[in-house]
Amino acid sequence: MEMISENRCFGGVQGVYSHESACCSTTMTFGLYLPPQAAHGPVPVLWYLSGLTCTHENAMVKAGAQAHAAHAGLALVFPDTSPRGEGVADDEAYDLGQGAGFYVNATRSPWEPHFRMWDYVAEELPALVVSEFPLDADRQAITGHSMGGHGALTLAIGLPGRFASASAFAPIAHPSQSDWGRKQLSAYLGEQESTWAAHDSVLLMQDRGFDGPLLVDQGSDDQFLDLLKPEVLAEAMAARRQEGAFRIQKGYDHSYFFISTFMGDHVAFHADALALS
Amino acid sequence: MEMISENRCFGGVQGVYSHESACCSTTMTFGLYLPPQAAHGPVPVLWYLSGLTCTHENAMVKAGAQAHAAHAGLALVFPDTSPRGEGVADDEAYDLGQGAGFYVNATRSPWEPHFRMWDYVAEELPALVVSEFPLDADRQAITGHSMGGHGALTLAIGLPGRFASASAFAPIAHPSQSDWGRKQLSAYLGEQESTWAAHDSVLLMQDRGFDGPLLVDQGSDDQFLDLLKPEVLAEAMAARRQEGAFRIQKGYDHSYFFISTFMGDHVAFHADALALS
Repeated sequence: MEMISENRCFGGVQGVYSHESACCSTTMTFGLYLPPQAAHGPVPVLWYLSGLTCTHENAMVKAGAQAHAAHAGLALVFPDTSPRGEGVADDEAYDLGQGAGFYVNATRSPWEPHFRMWDYVAEELPALVVSEFPLDADRQAITGHSMGGHGALTLAIGLPGRFASASAFAPIAHPSQSDWGRKQLSAYLGEQESTWAAHDSVLLMQDRGFDGPLLVDQGSDDQFLDLLKPEVLAEAMAARRQEGAFRIQKGYDHSYFFISTFMGDHVAFHADALALS
Repeated sequence: MEMISENRCFGGVQGVYSHESACCSTTMTFGLYLPPQAAHGPVPVLWYLSGLTCTHENAMVKAGAQAHAAHAGLALVFPDTSPRGEGVADDEAYDLGQGAGFYVNATRSPWEPHFRMWDYVAEELPALVVSEFPLDADRQAITGHSMGGHGALTLAIGLPGRFASASAFAPIAHPSQSDWGRKQLSAYLGEQESTWAAHDSVLLMQDRGFDGPLLVDQGSDDQFLDLLKPEVLAEAMAARRQEGAFRIQKGYDHSYFFISTFMGDHVAFHADALALS
């Protein structure tokens, strides 16, 4: 693992690191914030998965999460959204290939050799950061935005017992029935839609739900409402009697101005679930 | 004035606007945050001046100021750092020309036709925003970072009675004796150094000081300490018996991670001076 940068931030350290990923067969970069409490021993971890076109950096510099994480004593991990670099397949569209990994393990050419973001976020990166930083692997939570909200919800439901709590900002809730999803799941997983079910939050919610509290925030003026399909997720959460809350935030859109506004709520929610407050 | 974007943010609105500047003879862009309290009447204003290479956007998306401004009921204005566009002079160096206006009115070719950032920030933009938004022109404060800290301090001292309070993050404190200053003041104002004195915070502090409270934060691990010359400003503030505080923040550097960490302190400081808390 190589240190790219470290900056003091709210009494802790915001770092950026890279490593050779066996899983993705390329160099991967991630951001990791250690709160001041990490000086005294392992701290719990909140994963933040980003959306389409983002790298590890966007949320790290624009979401305002470090202030709240420092207050709660939580570490933050900001993975990249796809493999990148020489020899890694890409597409001209902003919503396929690099910057658009959709948190799945691709099984189809040309994506299959590198696009293994599920395994990367579920297995390889957790093992790395737990070995390299003072993190408490038994206390983890997960959140994300848009495509990263999709990733957070599918990982949370798909890995029972891993995350004490899950949340999402404007998640792509029902990709198997959205133009943000059908194209990508077809490309990465093939046309057989049964293979998509593990990567659709609504289908997972209908099938089994999440074994902890769940918080979802969605702006009423989001420019991508038709692609996100929040109403189907809200219905599925209520029908499942899923512990947690689905909230519509009036007047907010899909931007980081929306995310930063409610980041304090989300960090406090996870801190509660992790018994930090 | 043209609206470029408006995003709901912490219950208020983060906008970006452009206008034809008579002062700079080009189109200028700025950011302006209105807190929720602006729905009920004019609110006080905190100006934020940015540093080298920045536009109106950097602090608007990375400094985390809106959360604190919404809490205090303050509007924020984020001017650009120079004129830009077709026909506007520039230089290959990052620290001269576009993105590096240094908050002066240039009197030398090729800068003189457009580079009038002192008048722009002191006169034209205040008149515009007060006419277009619910702002209380009688209650203003100013802050900034690096070159913008230089701008905040020189404007605050140079316009007695305008600002109730002033603050700066890692300001270029003594440009007349720094490589961040001598080159630019020579280029914009000419070689006669007596014309530079109105644009050097240390000289202004030695000469007269600021007629309100002043807060300066400086990271101990700032990579530009030699160029910023904080020790000369600290000495001048103490010698002047300037009301306020000069603080060294241990381990912090020159980045927005430093700024965002202490932005809450700065907004609270200005809110106190504006009698908002």
